[in-house]
Amino acid sequence: MSEIERVGVSLEKKLLLDFDRLIAKQGYTNRSKAIRDLIRNRLSQEQLADPTSQATAGVFLIYDHHATKLAQKLVDLQHIHLLHVIATTHVHLDHNNCLEVIILKGRVKEIEKLGNSIASLKGVKLSRMNMMAAEV
Amino acid sequence: MSEIERVGVSLEKKLLLDFDRLIAKQGYTNRSKAIRDLIRNRLSQEQLADPTSQATAGVFLIYDHHATKLAQKLVDLQHIHLLHVIATTHVHLDHNNCLEVIILKGRVKEIEKLGNSIASLKGVKLSRMNMMAAEV
Amino acid sequence: MSEIERVGVSLEKKLLLDFDRLIAKQGYTNRSKAIRDLIRNRLSQEQLADPTSQATAGVFLIYDHHATKLAQKLVDLQHIHLLHVIATTHVHLDHNNCLEVIILKGRVKEIEKLGNSIASLKGVKLSRMNMMAAEV
Amino acid sequence: MSEIERVGVSLEKKLLLDFDRLIAKQGYTNRSKAIRDLIRNRLSQEQLADPTSQATAGVFLIYDHHATKLAQKLVDLQHIHLLHVIATTHVHLDHNNCLEVIILKGRVKEIEKLGNSIASLKGVKLSRMNMMAAEV
Repeated sequence: MSEIERVGVSLEKKLLLDFDRLIAKQGYTNRSKAIRDLIRNRLSQEQLADPTSQATAGVFLIYDHHATKLAQKLVDLQHIHLLHVIATTHVHLDHNNCLEVIILKGRVKEIEKLGNSIASLKGVKLSRMNMMAAEV
Repeated sequence: MSEIERVGVSLEKKLLLDFDRLIAKQGYTNRSKAIRDLIRNRLSQEQLADPTSQATAGVFLIYDHHATKLAQKLVDLQHIHLLHVIATTHVHLDHNNCLEVIILKGRVKEIEKLGNSIASLKGVKLSRMNMMAAEV
Repeated sequence: MSEIERVGVSLEKKLLLDFDRLIAKQGYTNRSKAIRDLIRNRLSQEQLADPTSQATAGVFLIYDHHATKLAQKLVDLQHIHLLHVIATTHVHLDHNNCLEVIILKGRVKEIEKLGNSIASLKGVKLSRMNMMAAEV
Repeated sequence: MSEIERVGVSLEKKLLLDFDRLIAKQGYTNRSKAIRDLIRNRLSQEQLADPTSQATAGVFLIYDHHATKLAQKLVDLQHIHLLHVIATTHVHLDHNNCLEVIILKGRVKEIEKLGNSIASLKGVKLSRMNMMAAEV
């Protein structure tokens, strides 16, 4: 647990009122937490802009589970790319569609390559990727 | 499985060459699949712009597992919002940090509210949300 | 000019150090200004999520200036939609391509409709839109 | 003007119907144009991911025109960064606020640096950046 510092911030009264109204709506009960979250997001975004930095990611994909050998190809891909898969979750959405979430760690660049490779697989209908800086 | 149609598309030779080069790099072996994916993504994006439409979502959050009662609050939130949680996956990232992925279904509007509520919880350091149109 | 308030924010020492390093790199000489900017951006984003709110926007488009009557169609579109065009800037990029920037005010919903209508015009190759909340 | 090719694309009937409905709503009268636009956008996005590639950009900023010497600092910044400013448009939004749009060409990396430098200037309240690949 890191040491806590207290800093002063000056801002226009109207800006402060608007911000307090917004964060109350979002459920914040603590203004410092809301500002910390803005800062942490900005830093995470900065870190992810560097393709060689480490990230934790989730790859989401919806696919047709009738597609032949897709499961095997997914596993193969995770090995080709230099990535450390931590967990996968598989959900049956309906008769045709499966959702799979792959949680992994690795360099931003490698994660993006994996995302592209997965999107191009036969049977994959939609894919999305979430990345978060490894250090938070 | 939907019936397949074949349509003709006319485009500049240079645009076609550039596109073929890009999709080869991404691992596509089939140009129709690459164009279908662009179309499906565009449609999904359109559907999600409507706050009342149904979506499948993944909420990612990194949190400090020393934060008191966070696990309980997360469960409570999932009940307050009118959402159907399908699965959650929990990963221990390091001594302090946990990653949790919550896969759920519901209206875009409700999913966004849940995302905001989760971000504001004490102990949650980063959160990201992925939405995909329910019908694909 | 709004009255200035000073508030205290507590945050982890490491988070503060990382933030100070980032904003120095970006050219900030004042931490309060950097935090105000994060807050203002967050508020602007929130406001733009409401389709009925007022915004200032810039529509960028690159088009083939050989396309017949495009200039006239652009002017027509600006009148159909309930928008107030403030200024347009036209730049000759190369032999074939023009860049036009249309600065306008109006409701988020109407601006988005205009953006779609412009993208679909014959001869328009790329278009992008920037929106900023009207009140800042 | 580039030579035109005609290619065949096979896709599910339902996907085609949904796409035709969407593009009609957006004002497209030509399906090939809608698909070309999706492809061009994807390529532009790819090109911009390379920090050394050339781009055309628009920097939007809203600033308090009482801020001292901002106009001069903006001009200075445009010279420090290795960028070619093509045009600027200045609009008086209200008593306090000005909107300035700077249209420029340069490498993605340099344009991003300029954007950061501008955001950090005293008096600048909001800034946004639009980039488009130079070749389209």
